[in-house]
Amino acid sequence: MEIGRARQLLTADQIFDLVREDLHGVEEAIGVESAASFEPATPISKCLEQNGGERLRAALLLLCARFAGGGSSRMAIQMGVVVEMLYAAALVHDDVIDVENARSGWPSASVQWANGNCVLRGDWLYLRAFRVALQESVLDRVIGVAQMMVMGELIQLNRIGLIGITEADCMQLADHKTACLFAACGKLGAMTAGADAQEGERLGEFAWNLGMAFQLIDDMLDFVSCESTPDKPAGGDLKEGRVTLPIVYALEQASVSERDLVASVLRDRSYDAVPLANVLALVDGYGGMQRTRVRARQFTDRARQIVAEFPDRLCRRALFTLTDLVTERDC
Amino acid sequence: MEIGRARQLLTADQIFDLVREDLHGVEEAIGVESAASFEPATPISKCLEQNGGERLRAALLLLCARFAGGGSSRMAIQMGVVVEMLYAAALVHDDVIDVENARSGWPSASVQWANGNCVLRGDWLYLRAFRVALQESVLDRVIGVAQMMVMGELIQLNRIGLIGITEADCMQLADHKTACLFAACGKLGAMTAGADAQEGERLGEFAWNLGMAFQLIDDMLDFVSCESTPDKPAGGDLKEGRVTLPIVYALEQASVSERDLVASVLRDRSYDAVPLANVLALVDGYGGMQRTRVRARQFTDRARQIVAEFPDRLCRRALFTLTDLVTERDC
Repeated sequence: MEIGRARQLLTADQIFDLVREDLHGVEEAIGVESAASFEPATPISKCLEQNGGERLRAALLLLCARFAGGGSSRMAIQMGVVVEMLYAAALVHDDVIDVENARSGWPSASVQWANGNCVLRGDWLYLRAFRVALQESVLDRVIGVAQMMVMGELIQLNRIGLIGITEADCMQLADHKTACLFAACGKLGAMTAGADAQEGERLGEFAWNLGMAFQLIDDMLDFVSCESTPDKPAGGDLKEGRVTLPIVYALEQASVSERDLVASVLRDRSYDAVPLANVLALVDGYGGMQRTRVRARQFTDRARQIVAEFPDRLCRRALFTLTDLVTERDC
Repeated sequence: MEIGRARQLLTADQIFDLVREDLHGVEEAIGVESAASFEPATPISKCLEQNGGERLRAALLLLCARFAGGGSSRMAIQMGVVVEMLYAAALVHDDVIDVENARSGWPSASVQWANGNCVLRGDWLYLRAFRVALQESVLDRVIGVAQMMVMGELIQLNRIGLIGITEADCMQLADHKTACLFAACGKLGAMTAGADAQEGERLGEFAWNLGMAFQLIDDMLDFVSCESTPDKPAGGDLKEGRVTLPIVYALEQASVSERDLVASVLRDRSYDAVPLANVLALVDGYGGMQRTRVRARQFTDRARQIVAEFPDRLCRRALFTLTDLVTERDC
């Protein structure tokens, strides 16, 4: 009942309002980091700023800090900077890996220059994040998370084009790529509030489940066109050679000839021979989308359950609502 | 006189023999790091092993440790692992930046895969290096060095194709790309031996000067074909758009039309219109190679001077000889 009531009480804006001031602190600290950089590094700050609209990970960390009884603290803000920089570094390096431009006829020198910049700017962001984390004595944990994220990307890269992916494979990737950073947000947030180890673990587990759901919904939404991101066409994952959970579920039921359709897209890296609409019909027909959403909701159910075990306090409703926002978003 | 005598006494093999046992320790520790890695990361260890023939930075660190009075220590070996991993990480990321294969007609998916692997394997090596450095409580310094190295690569990348490079620009790059890691080897080596701060600074300065010379000689040797590296054709730097010190010196004397020849190679990124032999004649004719070697020797003279200020002790001759090996090598 509690959970149901909480659902109706807050909007995304209201949640962000709870930590708006601290998020400004995070933006300011990121700005200071940028201003202090050398000339050629200046566009690095752009990577961070462009991403300013979201700051989901910092917000999660700050909400967990509030929930664990912490006020607005310099340390929580610094931790927010660390997780956002880590996320930005991984994104920037991902731009090299997914380099679409190399295919669309750029001059090779430009591709090389662009790739080189991606690599080095990502490195720079990692190093900044580590330096801040070192000052706050949490670097051991942060390096551990970064290692998981890099390992996730490596696993993903080395599965490109493979059709024999399992549900367990997808879960491993969701954990490495996304949930482990979410978990760190929960734990670090609790830590900045001076919470005990057990409470930190619980908030970490809450955030981990939220992160798993977030990634699964991401995989699902990849098949959906979205008005707010017209430059990101639907079906990109499969076209890039990545078999995600909705496909895995569909293939469990598919006939040999239907499986061949998917294999053809993976092989050609295009929807020329097999249109996206046919793949979507297949995935939807075998409940791939629906099952993925159900699986994501199992994770958010678990996340809500963990929060419900805590006594009612500041931000508890916000944490409940956050889980809904993750699974029910359509973009 | 002391310096002259030392020159004749040791060979490269004899120098390495002084720290051979500890270098084996470094290899073993790197092996342990590799064995502990997950499956997709296994080829990462290959990056480290392939580079096994050299280990110049670890050897420098171990020699400085001996010179500063330290024996064979676990900490010195761990530091050797850190500097070699840092160097390997930078090299691996450099492979993305200089990606030649992208031009020679690989299928784009393979280039993408290869680049992605380079990025992530480099990330992984950095993270390993940082983790070991953290255990040894030297991470602050190591992150500082990594930042300098990344900044050097960024500066270099953003100067690609520019002809208006100065001697000071080249010195800045040599410092960032190479000498600052050499300096760290000197300081860390001294530290593992329990040397005081002043001695650490002096050994750092020695190693920094050695590193500057090493990079300048590298820039010079780039114009020379070398039998032991037939896959690295002469004149690669200029062809890749990098104006290095021998060119800078030559352009200071060159006529407008001669300058245009260099500009043409930079613009075309090839020696089709202006053969390498013509560029070499220009660089040699205006003493570009000779002046670069003289400049490198100024750095090694300074390095030798610093060592000469220390009382004669174990490894002093080795440090002297090391400076000669750097400036007098021809490959």
